[in-house]
Amino acid sequence: MKKPSRIEDIQPFHVMALLARARELEAQGRDIIHMEIGEPDFPTPQPVLDAVSSIIDKGDIHYTPATGLPALREAIAHFYLQRYQRLVKAEQVIITPGASGALMLALGTIMAEGDEVLMADPGYPCNRNFVRFLSGKTRTIAVNAESAYQLSLEQLEQQWRDNTVAAIIATPSNPTGTLIEYDELTAMADFVRAKGGYLIVDEIYHGLVYENELETAAGLNEHVIVINSFSKYFSMTGWRAGWLVAAPALINDMDKLAQNIFLAAPTPAQYAALAAFKAENIEVLEQYKKEFQQRRDYLLSALKELGFVIEVEPRGAFYIYANCEKFTGDSDQFALDLLENIGVAITPGKDFGRNRPEKYVRFAYTTSLPRLQQAVARLKDYLHG
Amino acid sequence: MKKPSRIEDIQPFHVMALLARARELEAQGRDIIHMEIGEPDFPTPQPVLDAVSSIIDKGDIHYTPATGLPALREAIAHFYLQRYQRLVKAEQVIITPGASGALMLALGTIMAEGDEVLMADPGYPCNRNFVRFLSGKTRTIAVNAESAYQLSLEQLEQQWRDNTVAAIIATPSNPTGTLIEYDELTAMADFVRAKGGYLIVDEIYHGLVYENELETAAGLNEHVIVINSFSKYFSMTGWRAGWLVAAPALINDMDKLAQNIFLAAPTPAQYAALAAFKAENIEVLEQYKKEFQQRRDYLLSALKELGFVIEVEPRGAFYIYANCEKFTGDSDQFALDLLENIGVAITPGKDFGRNRPEKYVRFAYTTSLPRLQQAVARLKDYLHG
Repeated sequence: MKKPSRIEDIQPFHVMALLARARELEAQGRDIIHMEIGEPDFPTPQPVLDAVSSIIDKGDIHYTPATGLPALREAIAHFYLQRYQRLVKAEQVIITPGASGALMLALGTIMAEGDEVLMADPGYPCNRNFVRFLSGKTRTIAVNAESAYQLSLEQLEQQWRDNTVAAIIATPSNPTGTLIEYDELTAMADFVRAKGGYLIVDEIYHGLVYENELETAAGLNEHVIVINSFSKYFSMTGWRAGWLVAAPALINDMDKLAQNIFLAAPTPAQYAALAAFKAENIEVLEQYKKEFQQRRDYLLSALKELGFVIEVEPRGAFYIYANCEKFTGDSDQFALDLLENIGVAITPGKDFGRNRPEKYVRFAYTTSLPRLQQAVARLKDYLHG
Repeated sequence: MKKPSRIEDIQPFHVMALLARARELEAQGRDIIHMEIGEPDFPTPQPVLDAVSSIIDKGDIHYTPATGLPALREAIAHFYLQRYQRLVKAEQVIITPGASGALMLALGTIMAEGDEVLMADPGYPCNRNFVRFLSGKTRTIAVNAESAYQLSLEQLEQQWRDNTVAAIIATPSNPTGTLIEYDELTAMADFVRAKGGYLIVDEIYHGLVYENELETAAGLNEHVIVINSFSKYFSMTGWRAGWLVAAPALINDMDKLAQNIFLAAPTPAQYAALAAFKAENIEVLEQYKKEFQQRRDYLLSALKELGFVIEVEPRGAFYIYANCEKFTGDSDQFALDLLENIGVAITPGKDFGRNRPEKYVRFAYTTSLPRLQQAVARLKDYLHG
């Protein structure tokens, strides 16, 4: 049988094959240092576990409204006020099964078949697959060190077409950990409003920024849709809870979609998330963040010393996007070689797009400092031994 | 701004407006008996709560593989062997965020834009919205009491077109609670195979059949995709876990989609589900089922006495689809009237399609027997008092 083009067009993550090989090697007794994994290695913080346990004990784990627990929507609105001094109404917030659910609602609501969405290359690979899944078209824009690997207002102006409905940006970005300056962000928000389109702003790494305090795009204007998640800063990946903030005019349609396509985000995750904003939990998260920062500071200088070129200093998330030209002309083979020879698993550039991926690899510092040190020692030995 | 036709075409559930009004009345102190709700009122059984608590205590709630916990896939394969004497390999099972996630994977994998999907009217309203969400076309086929409100082989033969890729059937069905005979089911599976299409069989109410033991469609042939859920028989709605069973040839593509569109089903739900197959849990579920059966037996005869016509005896699920012509020519207004006047909430036929919906309402017996008795007393008073 011929497969639908939708399924032919959606690419699997190349890192999955590498991960499968890593698991094989581990089954053979090899020690693999995982630096390919895009999720925090920290456990769910204790205050969240305590809160959710007391809910679970009651056994009343029924559906919530499709838009989420009202108290959680309120807590998120309050979070915007407290952390960003930004007024967002609870009615503008929808709780989703992870940021994935939020992106599905956003695109499903604003994009018709054949409409075009702009995004940076390199970028998070699921974004273009979501667009294809919903029969839209992605126009990727090659970005480089000059714009900190981010889309710029100038590029939006140049690339926006009649059938463009949205641009997806991410700050901090995956895979580069770079930020968009607030002036640029607000200018882009103004631009999409003038065009009658949308700016989808992925802020899932927002809490993990190491020197700066970021401002949010939420509520900038009614053409901005912000996506966030409890999986990164809040260290709650497996629970599957995220959220979006959108203009009131979009919320009814998103609610309608949510009722149909996922009914509601998981109830245990929503109660967990409700506890995530408590002061004692934020304390734990700030400790996690400090540890991420130590890892980044260490790994950044160690990779430079080894000869990797970090073209733009990552300022957030838990990734370092490194130019590996000094060692290879084929980053994919390079990643496989490192896995086979020294048991270090990293992600090849080609998972993030077609913009010179053969020159780049992504290191995730989602493993402990001692393990990162071990990885660096192995790399040193292998590359310079 | 003009809305995309996708979002214009997807209808909200009419019952949501009714539910909102019910909440308003409750806030004013009115007592509302909820018979519009499609989820079990029972708590998550204690054996499941105990198992998940011990997992949560460890805090290790990270992502599982996109296809689900390997042990859970094994447990489900074992369940097919044990309950149905049907051989299904663990590799054919994918764990999904509810049956919704399963339907998304199934349609996303087999349906191209513009392809047609057949389904019964009346039927579960989300099905056609899923098809529209993914830019397919639904051909609804009016069904009636003659075929127990189910699609028949004859109808598939008559209605299958060149661009038809699948039929979605449900046994037991929502809203009618009726079954498809096994001979008919296997004949339909043969038919879609001959056509090179797919039969998507919704078995989410499978455990809740009151006189018969059903046989499963899982594994009938490689053109059958079975969808199931932990939300109904297993009484675990809010956790959001379901599964599908498909031919090995489809699994890689479904895995690829799952990686992109939801990453993985919620981890707590998957551990909960793993405990759901334990003997002591099945004992609890069989008690729940007995209670559902008592409610059905009571409500069925009470509604008949009141003058509702139940054209086909429901044999499963927790719904009674009742002809209300004796009382009204407008079931939508009738449902609103019952809510306003006697505080009984039921679902009007128009949420299930366009096949004479004005003559039907759906009663869900997802509330206790004493509450059902109260509802019947109020109905008697109102309709005959």
